[in-house]
Amino acid sequence: MSSGEAIGSGEFHRIATFFRPLAKGAPAALDLADDAALIEPPEGMALATTVDTLVEGVHFVGDESPDLIARKALRVNLSDLAAMGAAPLGYLISLSIPARIDDAWISAFAAGLAEDQAPFGWSLLGGDSTSTPGPVSIAVTAFGAVPSDRALRRSGARVGDAVYVSGTIGDGTLGLRAAQGRLPPGEGVSALLARYRLPTPRVALGLALAGRASAAMDVSDGLIADLGHICAASGVAARIDTTTVPLSDSAAWIVAEDPAIFPDLLTGGDDYELLITGAPSAIENAAAEAATPVTRIGEIVAGEGVTAVDGDGAPIAFARPGFRHA
Amino acid sequence: MSSGEAIGSGEFHRIATFFRPLAKGAPAALDLADDAALIEPPEGMALATTVDTLVEGVHFVGDESPDLIARKALRVNLSDLAAMGAAPLGYLISLSIPARIDDAWISAFAAGLAEDQAPFGWSLLGGDSTSTPGPVSIAVTAFGAVPSDRALRRSGARVGDAVYVSGTIGDGTLGLRAAQGRLPPGEGVSALLARYRLPTPRVALGLALAGRASAAMDVSDGLIADLGHICAASGVAARIDTTTVPLSDSAAWIVAEDPAIFPDLLTGGDDYELLITGAPSAIENAAAEAATPVTRIGEIVAGEGVTAVDGDGAPIAFARPGFRHA
Repeated sequence: MSSGEAIGSGEFHRIATFFRPLAKGAPAALDLADDAALIEPPEGMALATTVDTLVEGVHFVGDESPDLIARKALRVNLSDLAAMGAAPLGYLISLSIPARIDDAWISAFAAGLAEDQAPFGWSLLGGDSTSTPGPVSIAVTAFGAVPSDRALRRSGARVGDAVYVSGTIGDGTLGLRAAQGRLPPGEGVSALLARYRLPTPRVALGLALAGRASAAMDVSDGLIADLGHICAASGVAARIDTTTVPLSDSAAWIVAEDPAIFPDLLTGGDDYELLITGAPSAIENAAAEAATPVTRIGEIVAGEGVTAVDGDGAPIAFARPGFRHA
Repeated sequence: MSSGEAIGSGEFHRIATFFRPLAKGAPAALDLADDAALIEPPEGMALATTVDTLVEGVHFVGDESPDLIARKALRVNLSDLAAMGAAPLGYLISLSIPARIDDAWISAFAAGLAEDQAPFGWSLLGGDSTSTPGPVSIAVTAFGAVPSDRALRRSGARVGDAVYVSGTIGDGTLGLRAAQGRLPPGEGVSALLARYRLPTPRVALGLALAGRASAAMDVSDGLIADLGHICAASGVAARIDTTTVPLSDSAAWIVAEDPAIFPDLLTGGDDYELLITGAPSAIENAAAEAATPVTRIGEIVAGEGVTAVDGDGAPIAFARPGFRHA
């Protein structure tokens, strides 16, 4: 990989065997043979770039198959690009691997990367590998292209805007509980587990929203905390009606069995849906173009902070506003 | 930091306090408040990008002061940008920190980052932080700008080119031995230790060489192995006269005491000097402009691989061609 020699020499040649094919067809990668990749953003485009790291024992349990870990590492970054309205271009990967990791693991991991390249139209551009006395750690730096005046920011929400969310909320946190064995076996648990292990980044929706939504971000800290981030960045407040928050069939079934769990779905993390503000027609047109479901859950009002009310208009209290990783 | 919430929530707010000032004045950073940074490369420029990760216990011993660790993390990446002939623009940082790391450590680490921003003309653009059950790990993704037709590559060396190296060779590997307590105390050991802990990226030299050298890379695997990388990428061979390889006073003193150590200086890693091929006048003019010492050590010839000969023209054998991290 481009800078593999600079630091992670011991692992470089082994890793390069598996990873070089992932860079074929990406001129920016320079065949992973130089000290850096050379990206030429399309004319008039800004380069959106973000890094997210997954650590074994923190962001994945460790018993997942390596291809799923690889795909999650890409997808959490794709979700950040989507939240900016950027089209994926490519990524760098830095892989820290303990001695117990063998070629079969690396090969399966590379296969997972390959699987999530074509559907999202991007490629490996370079990276680094190193041994570690600690857990497996995967840092992905993602690159996307977006016209700078159409990029989705957190700071553009205005009083009177509607608040929308894509897909369904709460599956990520329920899936984490399932992965930790904290959810009793039952209908839909495997779907929640799959959702936690392999989130769906809303790339097409982000592209369609660019230049149309007033603000957007991806839901990773939890719906309430993330809406709070938009409010803080925009200098506004938000009010949501929790009865309108979209739940999957699996989540709805669990809430029906145990209504006390509902607030946790609004504060749990790892949904990787888009939280969007703006004019209803603009957002709904974009969602239709992207063939992605969105649901109106509230509105932007004057003030600060997020108020969540139930169907009767009574405020809901949360034990904690946002998810915090251990 | 831009994507801190997406993954490393638990640490985000604490870290952001220390890191946000590092992003002031860099419009691309969006005040670390969005899901990604937005880089607009200067007109006609390609974006050089590379990631290198430093892991405690592998790339640093762990007893270094946090500011030195931060500066080394930046500098090994700056060295990769220099090797491409790119001007530093900014960086993303992903920080994985165990529970024992306190605010004083983070504050000192951030001070180290700050210290190496202004001299190299770049800024923090975003990042991520997470807890880890393992060692401290620091992944830096660096961005630089270079006209794409002037970027320094490894593949341009041609038969008849001279081979040059900047600065001195072998201090990195001797400094590592000093850090590990494997070097007897003596004259110059503290200088070697300082060189290992805080390499000097040859940014000005790389900029001056862009469009002038036929090939370049930074010496991180060891002189012999890295020259081998240039040869392999260029389809040529190299012959160097080891008596011309520049040594620091400290290294020369150690070699005088123990001549058997000399081959290890040519195969040890972590020098972060530039290895350069091309026309002597072009390279020496660039070096003069950059006020950086360079030394001619050999030439590019037909064939493959690297031959090192001593003053009598006898080939030197190496126990291992390149440094491998444990």
